[in-house]
Amino acid sequence: VQAGDDLAALIADAADELRDGDVLVVAQKVVSKSEGRTRRLADVHPGARARELASEQAKDARLVQIVLEETAELLRADHGVLICETHQGLVCANAGVDMSNTPGPDVALLLPEDPDGSARRLRAGLRELTGARVGVVIGDSFGRAWRLGLTDVAIGAAGIDPLEDWRGRADARGRELQATEVALADELAAAADLARTKDSQEPVVLIRGAERAVTELDGPGAAALRRPRALDLFR
Amino acid sequence: VQAGDDLAALIADAADELRDGDVLVVAQKVVSKSEGRTRRLADVHPGARARELASEQAKDARLVQIVLEETAELLRADHGVLICETHQGLVCANAGVDMSNTPGPDVALLLPEDPDGSARRLRAGLRELTGARVGVVIGDSFGRAWRLGLTDVAIGAAGIDPLEDWRGRADARGRELQATEVALADELAAAADLARTKDSQEPVVLIRGAERAVTELDGPGAAALRRPRALDLFR
Repeated sequence: VQAGDDLAALIADAADELRDGDVLVVAQKVVSKSEGRTRRLADVHPGARARELASEQAKDARLVQIVLEETAELLRADHGVLICETHQGLVCANAGVDMSNTPGPDVALLLPEDPDGSARRLRAGLRELTGARVGVVIGDSFGRAWRLGLTDVAIGAAGIDPLEDWRGRADARGRELQATEVALADELAAAADLARTKDSQEPVVLIRGAERAVTELDGPGAAALRRPRALDLFR
Repeated sequence: VQAGDDLAALIADAADELRDGDVLVVAQKVVSKSEGRTRRLADVHPGARARELASEQAKDARLVQIVLEETAELLRADHGVLICETHQGLVCANAGVDMSNTPGPDVALLLPEDPDGSARRLRAGLRELTGARVGVVIGDSFGRAWRLGLTDVAIGAAGIDPLEDWRGRADARGRELQATEVALADELAAAADLARTKDSQEPVVLIRGAERAVTELDGPGAAALRRPRALDLFR
């Protein structure tokens, strides 16, 4: 996938037959590539803050400069890890800036500027090309504060109920459920990650049978999954 | 499911035909119920610390007392939420103590004392009853520090590679992958949660086709997913 490629057309060509209610989980990397979200390290001139952080954390100062440019707030810099809130409102390592599976050596890949917008455009494109009303999730691999390993989460979504709300509904015994919202979009992203490996170059996974998560309208997108600052206990 | 029930026998009876390489994701609630991990609120006498916290956080002091007894370290008490590290080493709200879908009104359900041990026993029981070498994941719904909504994670596992290690391996272009371990056990738990709803009373989900995650030996279990204290940037 190259900058300028029509990702909806590529997916529509590759998919056998899309149906209403299908969910397509698309890897952030191909979305970013198609949107030209790359930076060459050779073109980056690190500032004083980037050089200082890079030295402390034993990282490439040019990469740190890119990370800082993508960052709204640096939460932690420790153990060689930068935990950032990105301008998109996502909290993740290195502001989502990636150096693996990028378009070339010394090319960094950045997150899409507006991942929910990317998902909406993909959904509309697929609707136009195939007639199917699918849900689209853009997945990326994030770490967790208290657990090892990465799981894929939804950084963008369209036509998906991101948070299934069970609050106030009853359990099977009629007792009111405790505050429960299921992060469906994240679970779809995680499920899709099981169907490929890190070196399989399979950027899109089709999930069939999850119609429960697919909505008529584009909906609020993955933005609905960001924990508001007022409910953040760990910053 | 009642205290003392043989969960392996119940699952073997209910499953059509288990095969080598199948993964069974079992809800924590039925594991805890079968192990008798319940407390009646009426039997609990809250101490001073529980009464104080309950008053501050507008919670039932008897429930808070149970939560404190299950807690090794209280990380946060804010917005009516207690974030605890349990004696099992899990970081979650209310030390995993649950009041929904429990065996009766005013009965709290606690986490299994040793969820990896529970998973190993289930696996051995299923092997004996069916001959199949399956992987077992015990799933529970956890919140996340910076994202809204719950996703199911693995609190126990046996016969599962909990963390697929890609460190030092190459990406599709031959470039060394950045530090990447995939929390496979958590992704299996999340995928299973998509196949049921909070009121569907379906405590076990069979995942077929994830042989990649299933191991010959019981392995390290979900304990391998706990972030060591030295790598914890948010405590």
